[in-house]
Amino acid sequence: MVTNGADLGRLRRINELAVIAAVRESGDLRVAQIAERIGLARTSVGEVVRGLVGHGWLEEKVPVAAGRGRPAHRYRFRASAGHVLGLDIGAHNVRAMLADLDGTVLATVHRVSDPAMPRQERLQTIDRAVSDCLRQAKATTEQVWMSVAATTGWVDREGQILMSGSILDWAGVDLAGHLRALLGAPALVENDSRLAALAEHRRGVGQGVRDLVLLQAGRRTGLGILIDGRLHCGFGYVAGDLSMHRALKWEPAIEYLLFCDASPATGPTGDAVADVLVAAAEGHAGALVAVRRYVREMAIAAAAIASIIDPEVIVLGGSMSKHAGLLLPLLSSELDLLCLRTPELRSSSLGADSAALGAVCLALQHLDAAILNEHGGPLGPLRRPEAFSAASDA
Amino acid sequence: MVTNGADLGRLRRINELAVIAAVRESGDLRVAQIAERIGLARTSVGEVVRGLVGHGWLEEKVPVAAGRGRPAHRYRFRASAGHVLGLDIGAHNVRAMLADLDGTVLATVHRVSDPAMPRQERLQTIDRAVSDCLRQAKATTEQVWMSVAATTGWVDREGQILMSGSILDWAGVDLAGHLRALLGAPALVENDSRLAALAEHRRGVGQGVRDLVLLQAGRRTGLGILIDGRLHCGFGYVAGDLSMHRALKWEPAIEYLLFCDASPATGPTGDAVADVLVAAAEGHAGALVAVRRYVREMAIAAAAIASIIDPEVIVLGGSMSKHAGLLLPLLSSELDLLCLRTPELRSSSLGADSAALGAVCLALQHLDAAILNEHGGPLGPLRRPEAFSAASDA
Repeated sequence: MVTNGADLGRLRRINELAVIAAVRESGDLRVAQIAERIGLARTSVGEVVRGLVGHGWLEEKVPVAAGRGRPAHRYRFRASAGHVLGLDIGAHNVRAMLADLDGTVLATVHRVSDPAMPRQERLQTIDRAVSDCLRQAKATTEQVWMSVAATTGWVDREGQILMSGSILDWAGVDLAGHLRALLGAPALVENDSRLAALAEHRRGVGQGVRDLVLLQAGRRTGLGILIDGRLHCGFGYVAGDLSMHRALKWEPAIEYLLFCDASPATGPTGDAVADVLVAAAEGHAGALVAVRRYVREMAIAAAAIASIIDPEVIVLGGSMSKHAGLLLPLLSSELDLLCLRTPELRSSSLGADSAALGAVCLALQHLDAAILNEHGGPLGPLRRPEAFSAASDA
Repeated sequence: MVTNGADLGRLRRINELAVIAAVRESGDLRVAQIAERIGLARTSVGEVVRGLVGHGWLEEKVPVAAGRGRPAHRYRFRASAGHVLGLDIGAHNVRAMLADLDGTVLATVHRVSDPAMPRQERLQTIDRAVSDCLRQAKATTEQVWMSVAATTGWVDREGQILMSGSILDWAGVDLAGHLRALLGAPALVENDSRLAALAEHRRGVGQGVRDLVLLQAGRRTGLGILIDGRLHCGFGYVAGDLSMHRALKWEPAIEYLLFCDASPATGPTGDAVADVLVAAAEGHAGALVAVRRYVREMAIAAAAIASIIDPEVIVLGGSMSKHAGLLLPLLSSELDLLCLRTPELRSSSLGADSAALGAVCLALQHLDAAILNEHGGPLGPLRRPEAFSAASDA
């Protein structure tokens, strides 16, 4: 334990942060349990806990009477003190997700949009999705401490959309500025494939993986790269954008599926791509040829990633991940021919909400860094921070 | 300043490390200058400095009489206390480089070898290069605290060569084990392109760059990747190995140069590749076509790196770097067509010694981590550490 003659306040803060971290990790704990975990005397912990309850960082969990005696007080992090908002703004869909400070999702709203929608209309759709999401969770704008939006294309560090292949009237929109004005809180914008990768790392099939790449595969393609557990965005913020690389972009390969005239045994569903994938899984020879051709193109990109980054895991995300049972063995065989080591291939478990969830995760990461930083004296009341790091850059 | 009731020893160590870091950064300093830099009282610094001199960490610089008065004592890190050995073992060359604990190169030895040399003969060539290098620097085996060898191909974490395309009888050699037995000190083996990249970052044109990729271009090709200033090796230790990726490996493209029958104005030199590059720079039309074809292939790999990693800088290394004036503008134009952002292109400044120098840098990095770690009480005498981190893995 570090003691500090000149600045006992700093020591106090370190102990407070240790208590908060222990409680958050376990969900809820008694004072004796906290003391044991962080190696501090029980009386000191009791004092720190009382202070943190007074400042709204911890709250007492309603005790459950269990057998004899008075139940011991249990404490948990007051995650309801603030909220973060995660958005996913694509060509066809707008999603809004509200979560508390522990990332527990309180409400999710989905609205349909259109690639050709004018930007003003899209921004209004976003605004309505946000207010519907807040209403659903009975929350107010003031309770949102930070927002992050996932969107398609090339986004700069300031949250401006520089280029978007799939949303027509979108380049040049200051989306972060729009969200800051809407919510009066810091806002960030990030590429949706990157945020889907972050979500897999924090909440999905990539937990505990150091280097992970998510291949977004569907009508659109994209890459999200985590190195050492952190999003890798690159010097020009374009890391993972294969759109200009003739040999590596595999988005056009979807045409093998679109122009294959195969249907599942139960008949066509109207989703041409899904129909071919299901038919191939059922053994339809023509469908299988089309799928193999598609996978061969995807493998050229995946093998480039495997050869350059050598990640532990590649996660298949996007709408194709529903067909991972068919696709991953084919992809794995192709990769064996194209790289020294084929990474472990996994299928996304988070579905269509993954980018919005990744947005929530990024917001919490920034928020935690702002409210739980190690500088300064004892913690004050838990409240919306004034301004902070990445969000205050903008 | 942190004080510590229970463990004043730890505080002493922290202060000692701060003094050593300040002195190493500046070359040499007076006590008052050290005190100013690290924010400690002059008397405390004086006491710490005396202790460090006693334990051989610092030495007094011979004072230079300058004008009136008694010259103040100046202290510097005793870098001569130990040595590190860097090796570069290629198909055609063996290089050995001895440096002190600050990385000052004391001796370099170069021996010619042969791709077809049997492994025993190659190991003997290495042993002779090492002993010649030690003799040249008037150093003994016992003074070598760690060695790192750069070599071609795929090396595992334990320093075994798993695969080598250019040295015939090399796969399966336990090179790290051989060096440990030879020198009685920890040894590591690493891919030569990676170590060339590290050298550029620490001593060459990549200083201060966070994300850097070195393209090794010559008869052999290779990649070295630094992310966040650290070597990126990957989960399976194959990061940067493009040898199996049909679309990205550009090693065969050298044939465009080998089969082009162009010579410089001054006549052929016997080095067919260099002759074509010089002729192209002189304006020879056929040579220029061959060089453009070569660069186009290299650009496909470089653009994959730019698109996936988006490094700040790509460094051209290997023998082609001598022709960077011709090659880099051509490469830059190709990259503009294949990636969203063309990284800044630079030419290696370290020449043929770069991988050996990178080996020295990696050895120093491991050694510093071992002798300057923050754990424990006051520093003991500066001496060869018993066993440490990466090197003790093996």
